[in-house]
Amino acid sequence: MRFNSETSSNGVREQMFILGDVPGVLWTAEGAAGTRPLILMGHGGGQHKKAPDIVAHAHRFVAECDFAVAAVDVPGHGDRPKDEEYDRIATENQARVDAGEDLAPLIAGFQALVARQTVPEWRAVLDAVQDLDHVGAGPVGYWGVSLGCGLGVPFVAAEPRVRAAVLGLGGALASAQAAARITVPVEFLLQWDDERVPRAQGLALFDALASTEKTLHANPGRHGEIPAFELDSALRFFARHLG
Amino acid sequence: MRFNSETSSNGVREQMFILGDVPGVLWTAEGAAGTRPLILMGHGGGQHKKAPDIVAHAHRFVAECDFAVAAVDVPGHGDRPKDEEYDRIATENQARVDAGEDLAPLIAGFQALVARQTVPEWRAVLDAVQDLDHVGAGPVGYWGVSLGCGLGVPFVAAEPRVRAAVLGLGGALASAQAAARITVPVEFLLQWDDERVPRAQGLALFDALASTEKTLHANPGRHGEIPAFELDSALRFFARHLG
Repeated sequence: MRFNSETSSNGVREQMFILGDVPGVLWTAEGAAGTRPLILMGHGGGQHKKAPDIVAHAHRFVAECDFAVAAVDVPGHGDRPKDEEYDRIATENQARVDAGEDLAPLIAGFQALVARQTVPEWRAVLDAVQDLDHVGAGPVGYWGVSLGCGLGVPFVAAEPRVRAAVLGLGGALASAQAAARITVPVEFLLQWDDERVPRAQGLALFDALASTEKTLHANPGRHGEIPAFELDSALRFFARHLG
Repeated sequence: MRFNSETSSNGVREQMFILGDVPGVLWTAEGAAGTRPLILMGHGGGQHKKAPDIVAHAHRFVAECDFAVAAVDVPGHGDRPKDEEYDRIATENQARVDAGEDLAPLIAGFQALVARQTVPEWRAVLDAVQDLDHVGAGPVGYWGVSLGCGLGVPFVAAEPRVRAAVLGLGGALASAQAAARITVPVEFLLQWDDERVPRAQGLALFDALASTEKTLHANPGRHGEIPAFELDSALRFFARHLG
Protein backbone atom coordinates (compact mmCIF):
# COMPACT_ATOMS: atom_id res chain seq x y z
CA MET A 1 0.00 0.00 0.00
CA ARG A 2 1.49 3.27 -1.14
CA PHE A 3 0.18 6.75 -0.29
CA ASN A 4 0.37 9.30 -3.12
CA SER A 5 -1.03 12.49 -1.69
CA GLU A 6 -2.75 13.91 1.31
CA THR A 7 -5.08 16.88 1.81
CA SER A 8 -7.37 18.11 4.56
CA SER A 9 -10.61 20.05 4.61
CA ASN A 10 -13.05 20.81 7.42
CA GLY A 11 -11.19 18.56 9.81
CA VAL A 12 -11.25 15.58 7.43
CA ARG A 13 -7.95 14.14 6.22
CA GLU A 14 -7.98 12.57 2.75
CA GLN A 15 -5.20 10.17 1.77
CA MET A 16 -4.97 8.85 -1.80
CA PHE A 17 -3.39 5.40 -2.04
CA ILE A 18 -2.68 2.56 -4.41
CA LEU A 19 -2.80 -1.08 -3.36
CA GLY A 20 -1.42 -3.35 -6.08
CA ASP A 21 -3.14 -1.82 -9.09
CA VAL A 22 -6.20 -0.60 -7.16
CA PRO A 23 -6.35 3.16 -6.54
CA GLY A 24 -8.19 4.20 -3.42
CA VAL A 25 -8.89 6.94 -0.93
CA LEU A 26 -9.01 6.92 2.85
CA TRP A 27 -10.77 9.55 4.93
CA THR A 28 -10.19 9.98 8.67
CA ALA A 29 -10.49 12.80 11.16
CA GLU A 30 -7.44 15.07 11.29
CA GLY A 31 -5.29 13.88 14.13
CA ALA A 32 -7.08 10.53 14.36
CA ALA A 33 -5.07 7.97 16.32
CA GLY A 34 -6.00 4.45 17.32
CA THR A 35 -8.64 1.94 16.31
CA ARG A 36 -12.01 3.08 14.99
CA PRO A 37 -14.91 1.68 12.92
CA LEU A 38 -14.27 1.60 9.17
CA ILE A 39 -16.84 2.04 6.39
CA LEU A 40 -15.97 0.69 2.97
CA MET A 41 -17.96 2.46 0.25
CA GLY A 42 -18.70 1.04 -3.20
CA HIS A 43 -19.41 3.57 -5.95
CA GLY A 44 -22.06 3.37 -8.68
CA GLY A 45 -21.70 2.36 -12.32
CA GLY A 46 -19.79 4.93 -14.39
CA GLN A 47 -18.73 6.64 -11.14
CA HIS A 48 -15.50 6.49 -9.16
CA LYS A 49 -14.03 6.53 -5.65
CA LYS A 50 -14.46 10.30 -5.30
CA ALA A 51 -17.91 10.66 -6.85
CA PRO A 52 -19.88 13.45 -5.13
CA ASP A 53 -22.20 11.14 -3.17
CA ILE A 54 -19.26 9.07 -1.93
CA VAL A 55 -17.37 12.17 -0.76
CA ALA A 56 -20.47 13.67 0.87
CA HIS A 57 -21.20 10.47 2.80
CA ALA A 58 -17.54 9.97 3.75
CA HIS A 59 -17.18 13.49 5.15
CA ARG A 60 -20.23 13.09 7.34
CA PHE A 61 -19.25 9.57 8.52
CA VAL A 62 -15.88 10.99 9.57
CA ALA A 63 -17.06 14.33 10.97
CA GLU A 64 -20.10 13.08 12.89
CA CYS A 65 -19.10 9.53 13.87
CA ASP A 66 -15.27 9.67 13.80
CA PHE A 67 -15.25 6.61 11.54
CA ALA A 68 -12.59 5.89 8.93
CA VAL A 69 -13.96 5.61 5.38
CA ALA A 70 -12.31 3.96 2.37
CA ALA A 71 -13.35 3.77 -1.28
CA VAL A 72 -11.57 2.30 -4.29
CA ASP A 73 -12.17 2.45 -8.03
CA VAL A 74 -14.02 -0.52 -9.49
CA PRO A 75 -12.22 -2.13 -12.48
CA GLY A 76 -12.65 0.01 -15.59
CA HIS A 77 -13.69 3.04 -13.51
CA GLY A 78 -11.99 6.20 -12.21
CA ASP A 79 -8.21 6.07 -12.39
CA ARG A 80 -8.11 2.43 -13.52
CA PRO A 81 -7.40 1.56 -17.16
CA LYS A 82 -10.21 0.47 -19.42
CA ASP A 83 -10.81 -3.26 -19.13
CA GLU A 84 -11.15 -4.74 -22.59
CA GLU A 85 -13.30 -7.69 -21.57
CA TYR A 86 -15.72 -5.56 -19.53
CA ASP A 87 -15.84 -2.97 -22.31
CA ARG A 88 -16.65 -5.62 -24.88
CA ILE A 89 -19.46 -7.02 -22.70
CA ALA A 90 -20.86 -3.55 -22.00
CA THR A 91 -20.91 -2.78 -25.73
CA GLU A 92 -22.60 -6.11 -26.49
CA ASN A 93 -25.16 -5.53 -23.73
CA GLN A 94 -26.00 -2.07 -25.07
CA ALA A 95 -26.59 -3.60 -28.50
CA ARG A 96 -28.85 -6.26 -26.97
CA VAL A 97 -30.87 -3.59 -25.09
CA ASP A 98 -31.17 -1.56 -28.31
CA ALA A 99 -32.47 -4.73 -29.96
CA GLY A 100 -35.20 -5.01 -27.33
CA GLU A 101 -33.73 -7.22 -24.61
CA ASP A 102 -34.45 -6.55 -20.93
CA LEU A 103 -31.77 -4.46 -19.21
CA ALA A 104 -32.06 -6.04 -15.74
CA PRO A 105 -30.71 -9.56 -16.51
CA LEU A 106 -27.83 -8.08 -18.49
CA ILE A 107 -26.84 -5.82 -15.57
CA ALA A 108 -27.14 -8.81 -13.25
CA GLY A 109 -24.80 -10.97 -15.30
CA PHE A 110 -22.27 -8.18 -15.68
CA GLN A 111 -22.20 -7.37 -11.96
CA ALA A 112 -21.75 -11.03 -11.04
CA LEU A 113 -18.74 -11.17 -13.35
CA VAL A 114 -17.13 -8.03 -11.94
CA ALA A 115 -17.80 -9.15 -8.34
CA ARG A 116 -15.54 -12.15 -8.87
CA GLN A 117 -12.72 -9.61 -9.15
CA THR A 118 -13.82 -6.98 -6.64
CA VAL A 119 -14.56 -9.25 -3.66
CA PRO A 120 -10.90 -10.29 -3.26
CA GLU A 121 -9.73 -6.74 -4.10
CA TRP A 122 -11.91 -5.24 -1.38
CA ARG A 123 -10.86 -7.85 1.16
CA ALA A 124 -7.24 -6.91 0.46
CA VAL A 125 -8.16 -3.24 0.98
CA LEU A 126 -9.63 -4.06 4.40
CA ASP A 127 -6.45 -5.97 5.32
CA ALA A 128 -4.23 -3.05 4.32
CA VAL A 129 -6.33 -0.22 5.74
CA GLN A 130 -6.95 -1.97 9.05
CA ASP A 131 -3.19 -2.39 9.38
CA LEU A 132 -2.80 1.40 9.68
CA ASP A 133 -2.41 2.82 13.19
CA HIS A 134 -5.16 5.41 12.72
CA VAL A 135 -7.71 2.82 11.48
CA GLY A 136 -6.98 -0.48 13.21
CA ALA A 137 -9.07 -3.63 13.37
CA GLY A 138 -12.40 -2.13 14.51
CA PRO A 139 -15.86 -3.11 13.31
CA VAL A 140 -16.49 -2.67 9.57
CA GLY A 141 -19.54 -1.37 7.73
CA TYR A 142 -20.28 -1.38 4.01
CA TRP A 143 -22.22 1.25 2.04
CA GLY A 144 -23.08 0.78 -1.63
CA VAL A 145 -26.05 1.27 -3.92
CA SER A 146 -26.66 0.40 -7.59
CA LEU A 147 -23.35 -1.11 -8.85
CA GLY A 148 -22.18 -0.69 -5.25
CA CYS A 149 -25.00 -3.03 -4.23
CA GLY A 150 -24.43 -5.55 -7.02
CA LEU A 151 -20.77 -5.79 -5.97
CA GLY A 152 -21.50 -5.18 -2.30
CA VAL A 153 -23.89 -8.07 -1.71
CA PRO A 154 -21.33 -10.79 -2.60
CA PHE A 155 -18.69 -8.85 -0.66
CA VAL A 156 -20.77 -8.54 2.52
CA ALA A 157 -21.78 -12.20 2.19
CA ALA A 158 -18.13 -13.25 1.95
CA GLU A 159 -16.50 -10.97 4.51
CA PRO A 160 -17.10 -11.70 8.20
CA ARG A 161 -15.51 -8.41 9.30
CA VAL A 162 -18.55 -6.53 7.93
CA ARG A 163 -21.03 -6.05 10.78
CA ALA A 164 -23.66 -3.84 9.09
CA ALA A 165 -24.44 -2.68 5.54
CA VAL A 166 -26.42 -0.06 3.70
CA LEU A 167 -27.36 -1.48 0.30
CA GLY A 168 -29.96 -0.71 -2.35
CA LEU A 169 -30.95 0.08 -5.93
CA GLY A 170 -30.21 -3.54 -6.76
CA GLY A 171 -32.32 -6.49 -7.78
CA ALA A 172 -32.74 -10.14 -6.89
CA LEU A 173 -31.73 -11.36 -10.31
CA ALA A 174 -28.13 -10.28 -9.70
CA SER A 175 -27.83 -10.84 -6.02
CA ALA A 176 -30.45 -13.07 -4.37
CA GLN A 177 -28.18 -16.08 -3.92
CA ALA A 178 -25.45 -14.11 -2.16
CA ALA A 179 -28.05 -12.09 -0.22
CA ALA A 180 -29.31 -15.32 1.33
CA ARG A 181 -25.89 -15.65 3.00
CA ILE A 182 -26.01 -12.16 4.58
CA THR A 183 -27.02 -12.20 8.24
CA VAL A 184 -25.78 -8.80 9.49
CA PRO A 185 -28.15 -5.82 9.90
CA VAL A 186 -28.97 -4.18 6.56
CA GLU A 187 -30.63 -0.89 5.68
CA PHE A 188 -31.89 -1.35 2.12
CA LEU A 189 -32.74 1.61 -0.13
CA LEU A 190 -35.29 1.22 -2.90
CA GLN A 191 -36.48 3.89 -5.31
CA TRP A 192 -40.19 3.35 -5.92
CA ASP A 193 -40.01 4.57 -9.53
CA ASP A 194 -36.60 3.09 -10.39
CA GLU A 195 -36.26 2.97 -14.17
CA ARG A 196 -33.31 0.56 -14.02
CA VAL A 197 -34.31 -1.95 -11.34
CA PRO A 198 -37.92 -3.20 -11.53
CA ARG A 199 -39.70 -2.63 -8.20
CA ALA A 200 -40.47 -6.32 -7.75
CA GLN A 201 -36.78 -7.15 -8.25
CA GLY A 202 -35.75 -4.70 -5.53
CA LEU A 203 -38.39 -5.99 -3.11
CA ALA A 204 -37.30 -9.57 -3.87
CA LEU A 205 -33.67 -8.73 -3.06
CA PHE A 206 -34.70 -7.24 0.29
CA ASP A 207 -36.77 -10.37 0.88
CA ALA A 208 -33.79 -12.62 0.07
CA LEU A 209 -31.52 -11.13 2.77
CA ALA A 210 -31.18 -13.63 5.63
CA SER A 211 -30.59 -10.86 8.19
CA THR A 212 -32.80 -10.87 11.29
CA GLU A 213 -32.57 -7.09 11.37
CA LYS A 214 -33.14 -5.58 7.95
CA THR A 215 -35.11 -2.50 7.14
CA LEU A 216 -36.37 -1.43 3.73
CA HIS A 217 -36.51 2.32 3.05
CA ALA A 218 -38.50 2.98 -0.11
CA ASN A 219 -38.95 6.50 -1.47
CA PRO A 220 -40.63 7.91 -4.56
CA GLY A 221 -38.38 8.86 -7.43
CA ARG A 222 -36.07 7.46 -10.03
CA HIS A 223 -32.84 5.45 -9.68
CA GLY A 224 -30.63 8.43 -8.89
CA GLU A 225 -33.04 10.33 -6.68
CA ILE A 226 -32.50 8.94 -3.15
CA PRO A 227 -33.65 11.73 -0.82
CA ALA A 228 -31.06 13.54 1.29
CA PHE A 229 -32.60 12.41 4.59
CA GLU A 230 -31.46 8.84 3.86
CA LEU A 231 -27.89 9.95 4.50
CA ASP A 232 -28.97 11.02 8.01
CA SER A 233 -30.56 7.61 8.41
CA ALA A 234 -27.44 5.76 7.22
CA LEU A 235 -25.36 7.71 9.74
CA ARG A 236 -27.61 6.67 12.59
CA PHE A 237 -27.75 3.09 11.34
CA PHE A 238 -23.96 2.75 11.32
CA ALA A 239 -23.62 4.61 14.62
CA ARG A 240 -26.06 2.12 16.17
CA HIS A 241 -24.29 -0.97 14.84
CA LEU A 242 -20.62 0.03 14.77
CA GLY A 243 -20.38 2.84 17.34
CA MET B 1 -64.13 19.99 27.00
CA ARG B 2 -63.89 18.99 30.63
CA PHE B 3 -60.70 17.94 32.45
CA ASN B 4 -61.13 15.10 34.97
CA SER B 5 -57.69 14.52 36.39
CA GLU B 6 -54.10 15.49 36.06
CA THR B 7 -50.84 13.76 36.92
CA SER B 8 -47.16 14.28 36.12
CA SER B 9 -44.21 11.97 35.68
CA ASN B 10 -40.68 12.60 34.40
CA GLY B 11 -41.54 16.16 33.43
CA VAL B 12 -44.60 15.11 31.39
CA ARG B 13 -48.03 16.39 32.40
CA GLU B 14 -50.97 14.11 31.64
CA GLN B 15 -54.48 15.57 31.58
CA MET B 16 -57.51 13.30 31.18
CA PHE B 17 -60.46 14.97 29.46
CA ILE B 18 -63.85 14.32 27.99
CA LEU B 19 -65.16 16.13 24.93
CA GLY B 20 -68.86 15.41 24.38
CA ASP B 21 -68.85 11.66 24.96
CA VAL B 22 -65.26 11.13 23.77
CA PRO B 23 -62.73 10.44 26.55
CA GLY B 24 -59.20 11.58 25.83
CA VAL B 25 -55.79 12.35 27.21
CA LEU B 26 -53.44 15.24 26.60
CA TRP B 27 -49.71 15.15 27.29
CA THR B 28 -47.55 18.28 27.45
CA ALA B 29 -44.29 19.25 29.13
CA GLU B 30 -44.73 20.37 32.75
CA GLY B 31 -44.88 24.14 32.74
CA ALA B 32 -45.56 24.27 28.98
CA ALA B 33 -46.93 27.67 27.91
CA GLY B 34 -47.72 28.94 24.44
CA THR B 35 -48.22 27.40 21.03
CA ARG B 36 -46.44 24.17 20.06
CA PRO B 37 -46.82 21.36 17.51
CA LEU B 38 -49.49 18.80 18.35
CA ILE B 39 -49.46 15.08 17.52
CA LEU B 40 -52.80 13.28 17.47
CA MET B 41 -52.33 9.54 18.05
CA GLY B 42 -54.80 6.85 16.96
CA HIS B 43 -54.66 3.57 18.90
CA GLY B 44 -54.91 0.03 17.53
CA GLY B 45 -57.90 -2.33 17.47
CA GLY B 46 -58.84 -3.64 20.93
CA GLN B 47 -56.50 -1.01 22.44
CA HIS B 48 -57.23 2.38 23.99
CA LYS B 49 -55.91 5.93 24.42
CA LYS B 50 -53.39 4.88 27.08
CA ALA B 51 -52.15 1.66 25.49
CA PRO B 52 -48.44 1.11 26.25
CA ASP B 53 -47.19 2.01 22.76
CA ILE B 54 -49.26 5.22 22.74
CA VAL B 55 -47.94 6.28 26.14
CA ALA B 56 -44.33 5.41 25.24
CA HIS B 57 -44.52 7.45 22.02
CA ALA B 58 -46.31 10.35 23.69
CA HIS B 59 -43.73 10.64 26.47
CA ARG B 60 -40.86 10.79 24.01
CA PHE B 61 -42.65 13.26 21.68
CA VAL B 62 -43.15 15.54 24.69
CA ALA B 63 -39.79 15.02 26.40
CA GLU B 64 -37.58 15.19 23.31
CA CYS B 65 -39.52 17.54 20.98
CA ASP B 66 -41.66 19.56 23.41
CA PHE B 67 -44.74 18.68 21.36
CA ALA B 68 -48.26 18.32 22.76
CA VAL B 69 -49.78 14.86 22.21
CA ALA B 70 -53.45 13.89 22.34
CA ALA B 71 -55.18 10.51 22.07
CA VAL B 72 -58.83 9.57 22.41
CA ASP B 73 -60.69 6.27 22.68
CA VAL B 74 -62.14 4.96 19.44
CA PRO B 75 -65.89 4.06 19.68
CA GLY B 76 -66.35 0.78 21.55
CA HIS B 77 -62.81 0.96 23.00
CA GLY B 78 -61.26 2.02 26.31
CA ASP B 79 -63.61 4.00 28.51
CA ARG B 80 -66.35 4.21 25.88
CA PRO B 81 -69.47 2.03 26.13
CA LYS B 82 -69.81 -0.99 23.89
CA ASP B 83 -71.34 -0.02 20.57
CA GLU B 84 -74.10 -2.48 19.69
CA GLU B 85 -73.87 -2.02 15.92
CA TYR B 86 -70.07 -2.38 15.85
CA ASP B 87 -70.27 -5.37 18.19
CA ARG B 88 -72.82 -7.04 15.99
CA ILE B 89 -70.65 -6.50 12.88
CA ALA B 90 -67.52 -7.73 14.67
CA THR B 91 -69.33 -10.90 15.75
CA GLU B 92 -70.64 -11.48 12.23
CA ASN B 93 -67.19 -10.90 10.77
CA GLN B 94 -65.63 -13.41 13.16
CA ALA B 95 -68.20 -15.97 12.07
CA ARG B 96 -67.43 -15.26 8.42
CA VAL B 97 -63.68 -15.68 9.02
CA ASP B 98 -64.36 -18.94 10.88
CA ALA B 99 -66.35 -20.03 7.84
CA GLY B 100 -63.32 -19.41 5.62
CA GLU B 101 -63.75 -15.83 4.39
CA ASP B 102 -60.73 -13.55 3.98
CA LEU B 103 -60.07 -11.32 6.98
CA ALA B 104 -58.68 -8.31 5.09
CA PRO B 105 -61.84 -7.17 3.25
CA LEU B 106 -63.87 -7.53 6.43
CA ILE B 107 -61.43 -5.37 8.39
CA ALA B 108 -61.48 -2.87 5.53
CA GLY B 109 -65.26 -2.54 5.56
CA PHE B 110 -65.40 -2.24 9.33
CA GLN B 111 -62.73 0.47 9.48
CA ALA B 112 -64.44 2.48 6.75
CA LEU B 113 -67.64 2.38 8.77
CA VAL B 114 -65.99 3.49 12.03
CA ALA B 115 -64.03 6.25 10.24
CA ARG B 116 -67.30 7.96 9.32
CA GLN B 117 -67.69 8.57 13.06
CA THR B 118 -64.08 9.16 14.11
CA VAL B 119 -63.12 11.71 11.46
CA PRO B 120 -65.53 14.36 12.81
CA GLU B 121 -64.77 13.34 16.41
CA TRP B 122 -61.02 13.82 15.90
CA ARG B 123 -61.51 17.13 14.11
CA ALA B 124 -63.51 18.32 17.14
CA VAL B 125 -60.65 17.16 19.38
CA LEU B 126 -58.19 19.26 17.37
CA ASP B 127 -60.49 22.28 17.68
CA ALA B 128 -60.76 21.89 21.46
CA VAL B 129 -57.14 21.03 22.21
CA GLN B 130 -55.73 23.78 19.99
CA ASP B 131 -57.94 26.23 21.89
CA LEU B 132 -55.88 25.61 25.05
CA ASP B 133 -53.19 28.16 25.91
CA HIS B 134 -50.48 25.52 26.34
CA VAL B 135 -51.19 23.89 22.95
CA GLY B 136 -52.39 26.60 20.57
CA ALA B 137 -52.82 26.47 16.80
CA GLY B 138 -49.40 25.10 15.81
CA PRO B 139 -48.67 22.51 13.13
CA VAL B 140 -50.36 19.13 13.60
CA GLY B 141 -49.02 15.62 13.06
CA TYR B 142 -50.85 12.31 13.10
CA TRP B 143 -49.47 8.93 14.25
CA GLY B 144 -51.48 5.72 13.89
CA VAL B 145 -50.88 2.14 12.79
CA SER B 146 -53.26 -0.80 12.25
CA LEU B 147 -56.72 0.47 13.25
CA GLY B 148 -54.98 3.81 13.80
CA CYS B 149 -54.04 3.72 10.11
CA GLY B 150 -57.45 2.57 8.89
CA LEU B 151 -59.03 5.48 10.74
CA GLY B 152 -56.07 7.79 10.27
CA VAL B 153 -55.92 7.75 6.48
CA PRO B 154 -59.42 9.25 6.01
CA PHE B 155 -58.69 11.67 8.86
CA VAL B 156 -55.40 12.92 7.40
CA ALA B 157 -57.05 13.15 3.97
CA ALA B 158 -59.87 15.28 5.40
CA GLU B 159 -57.97 17.52 7.79
CA PRO B 160 -55.78 20.30 6.35
CA ARG B 161 -54.24 21.10 9.74
CA VAL B 162 -52.29 17.80 9.56
CA ARG B 163 -48.87 18.53 8.04
CA ALA B 164 -47.19 15.11 8.41
CA ALA B 165 -48.26 11.59 9.35
CA VAL B 166 -46.79 8.28 10.47
CA LEU B 167 -49.10 5.52 9.25
CA GLY B 168 -48.79 1.78 8.67
CA LEU B 169 -49.95 -1.79 9.18
CA GLY B 170 -52.88 -1.00 6.92
CA GLY B 171 -53.94 -2.12 3.48
CA ALA B 172 -55.15 -0.61 0.24
CA LEU B 173 -58.48 -2.38 0.37
CA ALA B 174 -59.57 -0.21 3.30
CA SER B 175 -57.81 3.00 2.52
CA ALA B 176 -56.54 3.48 -1.03
CA GLN B 177 -59.22 5.93 -2.08
CA ALA B 178 -58.64 8.27 0.87
CA ALA B 179 -54.86 7.76 0.61
CA ALA B 180 -54.96 9.20 -2.90
CA ARG B 181 -56.11 12.50 -1.33
CA ILE B 182 -53.16 12.67 1.11
CA THR B 183 -50.38 14.99 -0.04
CA VAL B 184 -48.45 15.68 3.18
CA PRO B 185 -45.21 13.83 4.03
CA VAL B 186 -45.87 10.29 5.29
CA GLU B 187 -43.64 7.74 6.99
CA PHE B 188 -45.32 4.39 6.36
CA LEU B 189 -44.56 1.31 8.49
CA LEU B 190 -45.00 -2.15 7.03
CA GLN B 191 -44.31 -5.47 8.73
CA TRP B 192 -42.85 -7.84 6.15
CA ASP B 193 -44.47 -10.92 7.73
CA ASP B 194 -47.76 -9.26 8.74
CA GLU B 195 -50.31 -12.01 9.39
CA ARG B 196 -53.24 -9.57 9.27
CA VAL B 197 -52.44 -7.31 6.32
CA PRO B 198 -51.16 -9.10 3.19
CA ARG B 199 -47.81 -7.64 2.08
CA ALA B 200 -49.14 -6.66 -1.34
CA GLN B 201 -52.01 -4.77 0.34
CA GLY B 202 -49.60 -2.77 2.49
CA LEU B 203 -47.34 -1.96 -0.46
CA ALA B 204 -50.38 -0.93 -2.50
CA LEU B 205 -51.52 1.46 0.24
CA PHE B 206 -48.06 3.08 0.31
CA ASP B 207 -48.25 3.31 -3.48
CA ALA B 208 -51.68 4.96 -3.32
CA LEU B 209 -50.53 7.91 -1.17
CA ALA B 210 -50.37 11.06 -3.32
CA SER B 211 -47.62 12.59 -1.15
CA THR B 212 -44.49 13.80 -2.94
CA GLU B 213 -42.48 12.90 0.15
CA LYS B 214 -43.40 9.48 1.46
CA THR B 215 -41.06 6.86 2.81
CA LEU B 216 -41.81 3.19 3.37
CA HIS B 217 -40.09 1.51 6.31
CA ALA B 218 -40.49 -2.25 6.07
CA ASN B 219 -39.13 -4.56 8.73
CA PRO B 220 -39.26 -8.32 9.26
CA GLY B 221 -41.76 -9.60 11.78
CA ARG B 222 -45.45 -9.95 12.45
CA HIS B 223 -48.19 -7.31 12.78
CA GLY B 224 -47.34 -6.34 16.34
CA GLU B 225 -43.56 -6.48 16.06
CA ILE B 226 -42.49 -3.04 14.80
CA PRO B 227 -38.87 -2.63 15.95
CA ALA B 228 -38.08 -0.07 18.65
CA PHE B 229 -35.82 2.00 16.36
CA GLU B 230 -38.89 3.06 14.36
CA LEU B 231 -39.94 5.24 17.31
CA ASP B 232 -36.60 7.07 17.00
CA SER B 233 -37.32 7.49 13.31
CA ALA B 234 -40.86 8.81 13.92
CA LEU B 235 -39.45 11.38 16.35
CA ARG B 236 -37.00 12.66 13.78
CA PHE B 237 -39.65 12.62 11.05
CA PHE B 238 -42.01 14.80 13.09
CA ALA B 239 -39.18 17.04 14.29
CA ARG B 240 -38.21 17.63 10.64
CA HIS B 241 -41.73 18.44 9.48
CA LEU B 242 -43.32 20.13 12.50
CA GLY B 243 -40.36 21.48 14.45
